[in-house]
Amino acid sequence: MADAPSMDVVVSLCKRRGFVFQSSEIYGGIGGFWDYGPLGVELKNNIKQAWWRATVQERDDVVGLDASIIMNPRVWQASGHVDTFADPMVDCKSCKRRFRADELVEHKHEAESVHGQAVDIAGVPCPDCGGELTEPRMFNLMFKTYVGPVEDSASVAYLRPETAQGIFVNFDNVLTTSRRKLPFGIAQIGKAFRNEITPGNFIFRDREFEQMEIEYFVLPGTDEEWHERWIQERFNWWTGLGVRKEKLRIREHTEDELSHYAKRTVDIEFDFPFAGFAEIEGIANRTDFDLGRHAEHAGRELKYFDEESDQHIVPYVIEPSMGVDRCFLTVLIDSYAEEEVRGEKRTLLRLHKELAPIKVAVLPLSRNEKLVPTARRVWDLLRPRFMTQYDDAQSIGRRYRRQDEIGTPLCVTVDFDTLDDEAVTIRERDSMEQVRVPIEGLVEALREKLGGA
Amino acid sequence: MADAPSMDVVVSLCKRRGFVFQSSEIYGGIGGFWDYGPLGVELKNNIKQAWWRATVQERDDVVGLDASIIMNPRVWQASGHVDTFADPMVDCKSCKRRFRADELVEHKHEAESVHGQAVDIAGVPCPDCGGELTEPRMFNLMFKTYVGPVEDSASVAYLRPETAQGIFVNFDNVLTTSRRKLPFGIAQIGKAFRNEITPGNFIFRDREFEQMEIEYFVLPGTDEEWHERWIQERFNWWTGLGVRKEKLRIREHTEDELSHYAKRTVDIEFDFPFAGFAEIEGIANRTDFDLGRHAEHAGRELKYFDEESDQHIVPYVIEPSMGVDRCFLTVLIDSYAEEEVRGEKRTLLRLHKELAPIKVAVLPLSRNEKLVPTARRVWDLLRPRFMTQYDDAQSIGRRYRRQDEIGTPLCVTVDFDTLDDEAVTIRERDSMEQVRVPIEGLVEALREKLGGA
Repeated sequence: MADAPSMDVVVSLCKRRGFVFQSSEIYGGIGGFWDYGPLGVELKNNIKQAWWRATVQERDDVVGLDASIIMNPRVWQASGHVDTFADPMVDCKSCKRRFRADELVEHKHEAESVHGQAVDIAGVPCPDCGGELTEPRMFNLMFKTYVGPVEDSASVAYLRPETAQGIFVNFDNVLTTSRRKLPFGIAQIGKAFRNEITPGNFIFRDREFEQMEIEYFVLPGTDEEWHERWIQERFNWWTGLGVRKEKLRIREHTEDELSHYAKRTVDIEFDFPFAGFAEIEGIANRTDFDLGRHAEHAGRELKYFDEESDQHIVPYVIEPSMGVDRCFLTVLIDSYAEEEVRGEKRTLLRLHKELAPIKVAVLPLSRNEKLVPTARRVWDLLRPRFMTQYDDAQSIGRRYRRQDEIGTPLCVTVDFDTLDDEAVTIRERDSMEQVRVPIEGLVEALREKLGGA
Repeated sequence: MADAPSMDVVVSLCKRRGFVFQSSEIYGGIGGFWDYGPLGVELKNNIKQAWWRATVQERDDVVGLDASIIMNPRVWQASGHVDTFADPMVDCKSCKRRFRADELVEHKHEAESVHGQAVDIAGVPCPDCGGELTEPRMFNLMFKTYVGPVEDSASVAYLRPETAQGIFVNFDNVLTTSRRKLPFGIAQIGKAFRNEITPGNFIFRDREFEQMEIEYFVLPGTDEEWHERWIQERFNWWTGLGVRKEKLRIREHTEDELSHYAKRTVDIEFDFPFAGFAEIEGIANRTDFDLGRHAEHAGRELKYFDEESDQHIVPYVIEPSMGVDRCFLTVLIDSYAEEEVRGEKRTLLRLHKELAPIKVAVLPLSRNEKLVPTARRVWDLLRPRFMTQYDDAQSIGRRYRRQDEIGTPLCVTVDFDTLDDEAVTIRERDSMEQVRVPIEGLVEALREKLGGA
């Protein structure tokens, strides 16, 4: 088994099997935007549902939210994004090309983009023509648009660059309507947009992406303890989804890279083939920064009444924040394997059963007209209960390989014996073991093997 | 029971119980944008999952897709949106205010906005100052933004005004990777944006909304038959979710209102309290218009090889298209009821079990310290399996009412007898019937009552 597939191999599988396509491909694409195909959308939905189940449904202290992408622009003034969410850009005075300044100098973390930081490019020439470069100027990474029929400064709005602020501005609404006591969290899944100068590495850094964020509100003084608990909690989520522990690490942000709002931040990193260890989730202690800023800008208190101390306080916030698309890439790379089986190569995705796009494939041994009605009957039985696929093209061996390659945990084979004994064969993806099960008990048997997924 | 609640009653319930909040409310909001609170996000997710299950999982001929919101702008030139997706606007020559021309004249369908149509406003004065109005000028309804560091015409992009085009441009990718034969469909759920001049009626017409669309590709000549089948199919979906048949109607588009791409369009309409019958889903025969336009603009064939006729053909398309937010409003209004129970009023949402945000509420009879550990144990048992809520505040009667008001189908009460007999009471929302069930068999009993939801 290959230890880690190359990116080319993963990208090619994604395209060939309908996980991910380049957006608007027939028009030459558009940089930093991707579409999820029939299998990709299922994997993506399963990731989101697994996170929601673990975060909102199974916990007793977190509720959900779904805020709009376009918000009142004052939100982004208060959050600091209008002023500081920017990358330094330089222009070449000779050839007029534009570059991101921090890409012209060496930086510690290849795969990371640290926004809003000044960069010293003194003496660096244009990488294209060798000409002289301008001083770096800050370029805001928020996509700008106009709301209403008039395009002027009064109608400017932004596509949110993070989902977090939608939670902070709803703090009071959620507190009031769900009658929560500290500590409690608000979780959200949704699209965010960043006008990255250099998107890249497939879906690793997109201009349009999806975030899953929790803002967990705690009493000041308990924040450090809760931070530790969330780091552990989130690390366990990743390994619980089957990502190998040895491919993950926890990295403390240095004082230099710490955001202005953060008291402490820890990244969970995955060992990517193109970049080495890079962030897949950040867990930050944002203190009372955001609620404080919004209270100030909106001119109203965003506080919690603590009965014990008989005081109104501004809670501290622990924020576990991750991207769905990067998680998608992580589980694809981590689950990808190549094996020799009886002298033949098989490619498989050892995806966690909860994540697998297709749970069960129904495979008649052949297209023989006697088999087809029974195979269709089995498919009709399973379809309301599991995401299934029916495949009758080419040899049964080829079809097993096709299902292995997309991570389908179970195949159900209908053969000529089925016509006599009303039983089918279940074949498992990883072990390739086969068991014979009566159709009558098939749903139960599959449910047990899938662990309720 | 009130036949139909007023909008005020529904909006107030949404705000009070955390279904829907005004976006960026602490900053005075932003017109046409809404946030979904803890209960709203669950209801919305349940609507989307019910649609996906019926459309993608349970059918054998539809696969899913999730295309990006920002696409190559040539997509919108090909689709005609750059040229024709516009509303006529007029300015007052005296007071300089701007109006939507079609709102200054009477129109047939109050709640509908028919985009891209010319309007004759000859002789109509400014509704504000009585001054003279300019000729109508077309105002494009797509939100515009810029991709990359330079804001110029070469970097203009749009937020998609519909999800449909993301499907058409992926027709070939999906066809190739999923090896489909006609007829087959591609289904998609995702955000879309329209810069409406006059958003309104709560979440009925938003600037940011979510669509659920199917493009169903068929052999030309079979399109009329498939259109009929989809009209029936989609109507049944609405009634299957519990929406009352007498509140729905099917309305044929007149020749006047038919879009330029449509051979025939039928709307499913719901009887809204503020507007009378208005569209909740459109089912259009788009012919080969879209694939034809994209083939022309992209300069490549978008065809299907039909083995029977041994020819490459451009499929026809049947499009069932609906909005998640409008569906949300429909099921809320339709399920809202007020009843007298023993001289007291109760408000309830008779939501379909599959849609209810909370499936089960766990209610200890009181906060008595002997009850709490058992009640928590029951909650811990149920939480991994169902969306649950724990409520121990105020009288049990009040808590039943609170659950009725948010549509929770089942309440589980833990009382002092439970400490002796290890049994609890299940109370049903609509009938208010109560049955006693041992904790050991509780999960099974609830699962049965929820019908697998």
